[in-house]
Amino acid sequence: MERRNATAAVIGAGDFIGGAIARKFAAEGFTVFAGRRNGEKLAPLLAEIEATGGRATGRSLDARKEHDITAFLQEAETAAPLDVCIFNIGANVNFPLLETTERVFRKVWEMACYSGFLAGREAARLMLPRGRGAIFFTGATASLRGGSGYAAFAAAKFGLRAVAQSAARELGPKNIHVAHLVIDSGVDTAWVRERIRQREGDEALKNLDPNRLMRPEAVAEAYWQLYRQPRDAWTFEMEIRPFGETW
Amino acid sequence: MERRNATAAVIGAGDFIGGAIARKFAAEGFTVFAGRRNGEKLAPLLAEIEATGGRATGRSLDARKEHDITAFLQEAETAAPLDVCIFNIGANVNFPLLETTERVFRKVWEMACYSGFLAGREAARLMLPRGRGAIFFTGATASLRGGSGYAAFAAAKFGLRAVAQSAARELGPKNIHVAHLVIDSGVDTAWVRERIRQREGDEALKNLDPNRLMRPEAVAEAYWQLYRQPRDAWTFEMEIRPFGETW
Amino acid sequence: MERRNATAAVIGAGDFIGGAIARKFAAEGFTVFAGRRNGEKLAPLLAEIEATGGRATGRSLDARKEHDITAFLQEAETAAPLDVCIFNIGANVNFPLLETTERVFRKVWEMACYSGFLAGREAARLMLPRGRGAIFFTGATASLRGGSGYAAFAAAKFGLRAVAQSAARELGPKNIHVAHLVIDSGVDTAWVRERIRQREGDEALKNLDPNRLMRPEAVAEAYWQLYRQPRDAWTFEMEIRPFGETW
Amino acid sequence: MERRNATAAVIGAGDFIGGAIARKFAAEGFTVFAGRRNGEKLAPLLAEIEATGGRATGRSLDARKEHDITAFLQEAETAAPLDVCIFNIGANVNFPLLETTERVFRKVWEMACYSGFLAGREAARLMLPRGRGAIFFTGATASLRGGSGYAAFAAAKFGLRAVAQSAARELGPKNIHVAHLVIDSGVDTAWVRERIRQREGDEALKNLDPNRLMRPEAVAEAYWQLYRQPRDAWTFEMEIRPFGETW
Repeated sequence: MERRNATAAVIGAGDFIGGAIARKFAAEGFTVFAGRRNGEKLAPLLAEIEATGGRATGRSLDARKEHDITAFLQEAETAAPLDVCIFNIGANVNFPLLETTERVFRKVWEMACYSGFLAGREAARLMLPRGRGAIFFTGATASLRGGSGYAAFAAAKFGLRAVAQSAARELGPKNIHVAHLVIDSGVDTAWVRERIRQREGDEALKNLDPNRLMRPEAVAEAYWQLYRQPRDAWTFEMEIRPFGETW
Repeated sequence: MERRNATAAVIGAGDFIGGAIARKFAAEGFTVFAGRRNGEKLAPLLAEIEATGGRATGRSLDARKEHDITAFLQEAETAAPLDVCIFNIGANVNFPLLETTERVFRKVWEMACYSGFLAGREAARLMLPRGRGAIFFTGATASLRGGSGYAAFAAAKFGLRAVAQSAARELGPKNIHVAHLVIDSGVDTAWVRERIRQREGDEALKNLDPNRLMRPEAVAEAYWQLYRQPRDAWTFEMEIRPFGETW
Repeated sequence: MERRNATAAVIGAGDFIGGAIARKFAAEGFTVFAGRRNGEKLAPLLAEIEATGGRATGRSLDARKEHDITAFLQEAETAAPLDVCIFNIGANVNFPLLETTERVFRKVWEMACYSGFLAGREAARLMLPRGRGAIFFTGATASLRGGSGYAAFAAAKFGLRAVAQSAARELGPKNIHVAHLVIDSGVDTAWVRERIRQREGDEALKNLDPNRLMRPEAVAEAYWQLYRQPRDAWTFEMEIRPFGETW
Repeated sequence: MERRNATAAVIGAGDFIGGAIARKFAAEGFTVFAGRRNGEKLAPLLAEIEATGGRATGRSLDARKEHDITAFLQEAETAAPLDVCIFNIGANVNFPLLETTERVFRKVWEMACYSGFLAGREAARLMLPRGRGAIFFTGATASLRGGSGYAAFAAAKFGLRAVAQSAARELGPKNIHVAHLVIDSGVDTAWVRERIRQREGDEALKNLDPNRLMRPEAVAEAYWQLYRQPRDAWTFEMEIRPFGETW
C-alpha cells in the first residue's frame, strides 16, 4: 500500500457504510479519521484497519454541535492534510404526518442535514486555502422523493442535497470536488435485515436474494470512483442500486 | 360576493404575495385568517378587505413556535371551518458557504421549512376529520436548484418541498389537496426592486420592463386556480414565471 | 356565450380528451377547428358543439404529414386567427424491448413526437407575426419516466416534452405561451376501461372507484386554466392526477 | 495487458469521444469492434490500438439502418462475445424553431435516438441469452434540458434517454447493466474548438483555459468506471463536467 500524505475524514463511521468507507480509503493509503456518536464503538474498525497495515484514528463526535465538528476536522489534520471528507449520517424514520412530532422533525434534520452543512462548510474552510479536496455526501431515495410518511426524513435529505449542490457550484471552480451519492436501495445492514424479518418473516430473511441488498463495500467503491475522477470530468450526482432493484 | 362557510388561513401574510392571496380568497367569499410576524402590520390589509365587503381577521404569529401555529389554526376556525391553508413564509438569503453562520442556516430553515411542516401538519389535523381541504406551499427557484451561495435558503426550500410532497402522497387519497407552487422569478416587491436598484442602478429600476417581474396578484390567481381544480385532476406542482423570463 | 374572434385548433380530437378540449374551448367562445385521423368520426362532436351554440369545424388530418399539418393550421385560420393550438395525439404501447419493432418505434415517434413538432412549429409560424398565442402539448407519465416496456412510447413522449420545452424558451419572450400538461393517470376512456377489464376482470370494472380515473372534462379544464394565466405568471409544466392516485 | 474473451462494440467511433472509448477498452484487454459512418476513417484508430498491443477491428456503419446495426453487432461477436456496447452518436444542431426543417428534425432523431434504440435492442438480443453485458449511451446537456433552438437535438437526446431508462428497468434484473452518461460540457474536439474560435475569436481559442473543456479520455474513463461497478451498486445515470464549468 502506498501511503499518502492525506487524511480522509469519515463523519458517521458506523458499522456498515461508514465503516466500509473508512476501510477502503485506509486501504488506498489515506490516514483515516473517523467519527461517530459513540466513539468507543470505533475500536474494532480502527483495530482492523491497523491490523491490515492502514492508519486510522477516531473519536466520539456529536456532528450536530458546531464546535464539535470544527474541532473534529481540525484534529483530523493532525497527521496529514484533509483531502477527503465524507458525510455519512442518516436518520431514516417513517411516521404518519400527524404523528411526526416537532422533536423528531427537528432532530432528524439536525442529524441528516444541519450537521452535513457544518461538516461541508468546515471541510471547505480547511481545503480552500490549499485549493484541493473532495467533499462527499451520502444521499438516499428520500433525497429525491418525498414518500408518504417521510416528511421528516425527506425534508432532511432534500435539504442535504441542496447543501451539496450549492457547495458544488461554489467550490467546484476552486478545485474542490463536491458530490452527492444517492443510495437508491436498502443496504445490507443489521437494521435492514431486521426490518425485512419483521415485515416478511424469518423464512424471507433466510432466503433473501443476495442481490437484493447492496453491500457496504460497494458504496465505498462508488466513493472511491468519485474520488478518482479526473477534474475535467467530475460527477456531482450519481445513484446506485442493486441490479435487481425496481425503481 | 357569495359568502362561503370556509376559512382560508394565510401564514406569512406580508405586504406582497401573502397579502394578495388574502385579498383573493376574501374576494372569493372566504373568511380570511391572516398571520405574520408583526400582526400590527396586518391592519391595512384587513381594513382593505373589510372595505371591499370581505371578511378578514388576523394576528401576530411566530410560525416557528409549535404552540403558536397550533393556536393560530385553531383560532382560524372560529368563524368557519379551515378549508385552505397557504404557507407563504420565505427567507431568501445568499452568503458564500464559509460565511453562512450556523445561526443563519438554522434560522432560515426554521422560517422556511420547519414552520411549513408545523403549519401543514396542524392544518391536516383539522382537515382530516372532515375529509376535505387544501394545503398549499409557496416554493421558489431554490426549491429545485441549489445555486452558489444558497446553501441555507435552498436547504430550507428543498426541505419544504419534501414536506409538501410527502404530505401530498399521504393526504391526497384522504381528499386533502396538497400543492407546491414554484415561483421561478422575482416578484414585484419593494425588496426585489431595491435589489435591482442596488445591482443595476437607479436608471435600470426606472426603466424596468413591466413584464420582468411577477405581480403578487398573479401568484394569488395561481393559488386560486389550484384551489378550483376538480379532484380527479389535482396538480401537486407547477411553476410560474413571467413570459419574458429566461430559465 | 361571448364569441371571440379566435380559433382553437385541436390536433387529435378523439372521443375523449381531445373532444372534451374542443367542447370546452367552444363553450368559451372560440371557433374550434378539430382534426383527427378519420375526420368522419368528428361529426357527432361538431354537431354537439353546434347544437349548444358553439362553432366548430374540422377535417381529417394525418398529423405525420408536414403538408397536411401546414394546410390544417392555415385552414384553421379561415374563420378567425389561430389563438390556441393543442396537440393531443398519443400512441401508448408497451412491448418488451426485443419485441419492439423498428416500425413500431418509428410510428409511435411519428405520431406522438414528430407530428407535435410540426404542429408546434406551424402554429408558431402563424402566431409569431401577431405576437400572441398559446401552444399546448399533452404529456403523460411516460413523458418523465421510461418504464419497463415503454422504450417506444417514452422515447416519443420524452421527445415531445423536449420540443415543448425548447419552444417555450424560444417563444415565451415573444408572448407565445407554450405549456406541457402531464397527465399522470389513466383517463376515463373506453380503451382504459377495456384494459382494466382485461387485467382485473368484469367485477373490477363494474366496481371501479369513480375517482380512480380522470374525466376528460377535467383535462380540458386544466388546459383552460393554463390558457387563462396572466402572462406574468405562465406555467410551462404541471402534472394532474386524481386525488386517489399513487405516485 | 490481460486479454479478455470479450468484445466491446463502439457505435460512433469518431475521432474524439468514440475513439477514446475504443482505446480505453482495448487497453483493458477487450477486443474492440468499432463502427462509424465512414469506416475508412477508422484506420488510424485501429492501427494505433494494434500498435499498442490491443485488438481492434471495425467497419463502416450506417446506424440508422436496422439491418446494418444487426449485422454490425453480429459481426462484433466474431472474435469474442459482445460484453459491452457503447452508443456514442450525436448530432448537435441549433436552429430557431421556424428554421428547423422536418428533414433536420427527422435526421437528428434517426442519428441520435432511433439508431440508439436499434443498437440497444440488438445488443440486448445478444446479451440476454448469456445473462450478462453492459449497454451504455452517451447523453448531453440536451438530454435533460430543451434549450432555445434545440427542439431537434433535445427531442432526440431526451428520446435516447427514455430508451436507456426503459431498457435499464427491463434489463437490469436480467443482469445487463444499462447506463446513460450525461456529458454536461463541451468536449475538447476540433468541432468545439472551431465553434469557440467563431464565437469568441482566435485569441480566445489560443488562451483557452485547459480546464474548460473535457478531454475525450476523461469520458472514456467514466465509461470504464461504470463498467467496473459491482452489480449490487449499479448507476443508471451520472453527469460529468469539468471542475470549472458553471451549471
